[in-house]
Amino acid sequence: MEIAKSLQQTPSSYIREILAAASDKNVISLAGGLPDEKTFPIDLMKPTLETLSEMPEVFQYGATAGYTPLLNFLTDYFQLPDTHIAMACTGSQQGLDLIARAYVNPGDKVVMEAPSYLGAMQVFGLVQADIVTVPQTEFGPDIEALRTVFYEQSPKMFYAVPDFHNPTGVCWSLETRKQVAALCEQYNVALIEDAPYRELRFSGEAIPLVSDFCPQHSIVLRSFSKIASPGLRVGIVSGKRSYLEPLIKIKQGADLHSSVPMQALLLGLLKHDNFDYHIDTIRTLYKSRYETLYSELQDKLPEGCEIKPVDGGMFVWVTLPSCDTFKLAKELLKDGVAVVPSPVFYPQPEAAKAALRLNFTNATPTELAEAVSRLASGLAKAI
Amino acid sequence: MEIAKSLQQTPSSYIREILAAASDKNVISLAGGLPDEKTFPIDLMKPTLETLSEMPEVFQYGATAGYTPLLNFLTDYFQLPDTHIAMACTGSQQGLDLIARAYVNPGDKVVMEAPSYLGAMQVFGLVQADIVTVPQTEFGPDIEALRTVFYEQSPKMFYAVPDFHNPTGVCWSLETRKQVAALCEQYNVALIEDAPYRELRFSGEAIPLVSDFCPQHSIVLRSFSKIASPGLRVGIVSGKRSYLEPLIKIKQGADLHSSVPMQALLLGLLKHDNFDYHIDTIRTLYKSRYETLYSELQDKLPEGCEIKPVDGGMFVWVTLPSCDTFKLAKELLKDGVAVVPSPVFYPQPEAAKAALRLNFTNATPTELAEAVSRLASGLAKAI
Repeated sequence: MEIAKSLQQTPSSYIREILAAASDKNVISLAGGLPDEKTFPIDLMKPTLETLSEMPEVFQYGATAGYTPLLNFLTDYFQLPDTHIAMACTGSQQGLDLIARAYVNPGDKVVMEAPSYLGAMQVFGLVQADIVTVPQTEFGPDIEALRTVFYEQSPKMFYAVPDFHNPTGVCWSLETRKQVAALCEQYNVALIEDAPYRELRFSGEAIPLVSDFCPQHSIVLRSFSKIASPGLRVGIVSGKRSYLEPLIKIKQGADLHSSVPMQALLLGLLKHDNFDYHIDTIRTLYKSRYETLYSELQDKLPEGCEIKPVDGGMFVWVTLPSCDTFKLAKELLKDGVAVVPSPVFYPQPEAAKAALRLNFTNATPTELAEAVSRLASGLAKAI
Repeated sequence: MEIAKSLQQTPSSYIREILAAASDKNVISLAGGLPDEKTFPIDLMKPTLETLSEMPEVFQYGATAGYTPLLNFLTDYFQLPDTHIAMACTGSQQGLDLIARAYVNPGDKVVMEAPSYLGAMQVFGLVQADIVTVPQTEFGPDIEALRTVFYEQSPKMFYAVPDFHNPTGVCWSLETRKQVAALCEQYNVALIEDAPYRELRFSGEAIPLVSDFCPQHSIVLRSFSKIASPGLRVGIVSGKRSYLEPLIKIKQGADLHSSVPMQALLLGLLKHDNFDYHIDTIRTLYKSRYETLYSELQDKLPEGCEIKPVDGGMFVWVTLPSCDTFKLAKELLKDGVAVVPSPVFYPQPEAAKAALRLNFTNATPTELAEAVSRLASGLAKAI
């Protein structure tokens, strides 16, 4: 049976190959984007796990938009405006897929920063969007480039990860947030704000969502994979009702609804008195791992390699002198360290600047130090 | 933001309106397709629910194809041939959606019986398939009509519910199964065999899947919503590896993977010593409810209305003298009984023969009897 044309255009996922190879015991993986399993708040989930058997209603078919007690709770928790609703998805990844399916026709223009999140490129690739990129600065997207794209190309939406961007770790400045919001309103472009790392801030002051400055022109995707557990697969999409209703309609066909016991479990966790303390613990842990990675990199990276500090998230981005980063990543794998080469994060891989993404959340300080040694000696050989 | 063209072509779901109205306390609903909440094997799930907190690995990101211990178990349980693999989805509904997205281009022909499952029409509608129908007899699809369609129109796939069809309750005969399988092989049409009601047989002998006669030309969708719990949202898709790999690739973008704790919970349930006994209990319960509904209908239906006995599943199909069944269903709702009118089950609603779908799994015998009284008096007025 011949596969659909939309799928034929999806490149095979090189990152999956790396992740597969990275499971070798002799390899230290900084390639994935996994939270540390030890941080999962299983103790805080246990009371709910044990009472699910007294909640037969969560085992029945549920509403497509999600488990009502969870949605009600989150409407308050996220302080959604009256015009807005929330819906639960099978991870925020599904929310993104629903947005693409509900709104994007083949050839419609979708703007992203370059580099950008691989999973978003897959999703928009499947609906055959015309992905247009703008460069990223240390404060967020290049505003003049964004204005030009909005003005000249009339895109339908702008997909962005403003908090601790995947892969670069950049956190958009307050000023950039306001400017992007104003541009979205001015040019009637919907902002798709993906915020999976937002709660993982370990330095600096919290700043508002970009969507807070353009609430009628945005959809927000929130994840609990990094602060609760990815295995649950519960993400939340919120936005004005007219934006969300088409997503609910698609979801009806896509899977009827997401697991209700998992939504009830998440609700129990969010309501637990110690949940805030739990997030603080994760932040402290990841901060110390980040600091280890960063200082090891500062000490050991060969000349010509550059890193910028981050205030949260899961990744550090190492820019390199021009080289074949795919070949480099394969060589590094042989040296016992897995990293992700920059081209996989670019819709036009040939336009990628040489860089590597390093994850710091799922390795111990000892592993991080050893990984950097292997990385540094591999880099010294290669560049 | 303008919605995608594919969604603009999806008709609004009248059945959702009926189901919403059916939640009124004064209405007895035979409209839904819900299992009885009291049948959920929560006692059998409880031991696993209580040990999930000792399985931190199920809270981490999982493999896109599903939780390996579950897939291994099911490969044996379903006695899959060596050429085949299984994958876990967010309900078998998602499996169907992935099949449509992986294989169907706009305008590709997909064959179904008419009437057919509404959720399948939604899914194939979203990918803008050209849905071609064949009539259904009491033994399954009209074989000569099917042969003609396969020969003249070269469809890509044939979607079917051979066991206790939704909405008619028809179970394909053994001979029809063999004939359909032979046609699929002869004309190289993939059979998409949707089997959510297969385990709900309460009369007659079990017969093989259609796919057992054409294993290299079929994909099977299996549900645990009717024998375990719909809320879990775990369905299984199986077929030859080359058929399934594109589905896994789409699922990677669609939601990364389905809930791992729910897959572990299902595995614990399937392995429970009392699970087979539990299924027997459900069969016995639904058989008695079916018998109540059927005998009440035989006694009370006005002349010109016809029913056929079923050997399992969840539905009875009442054919009526020609009338406006939408109007009838609305009138019946006022009389306190919710049913689903036949046109919603036809890709070309205007071609529908007048009929109503009645569900018997989620109402007590008393409710079933009262519902039939209301139905019969409503019908007597209308026709």
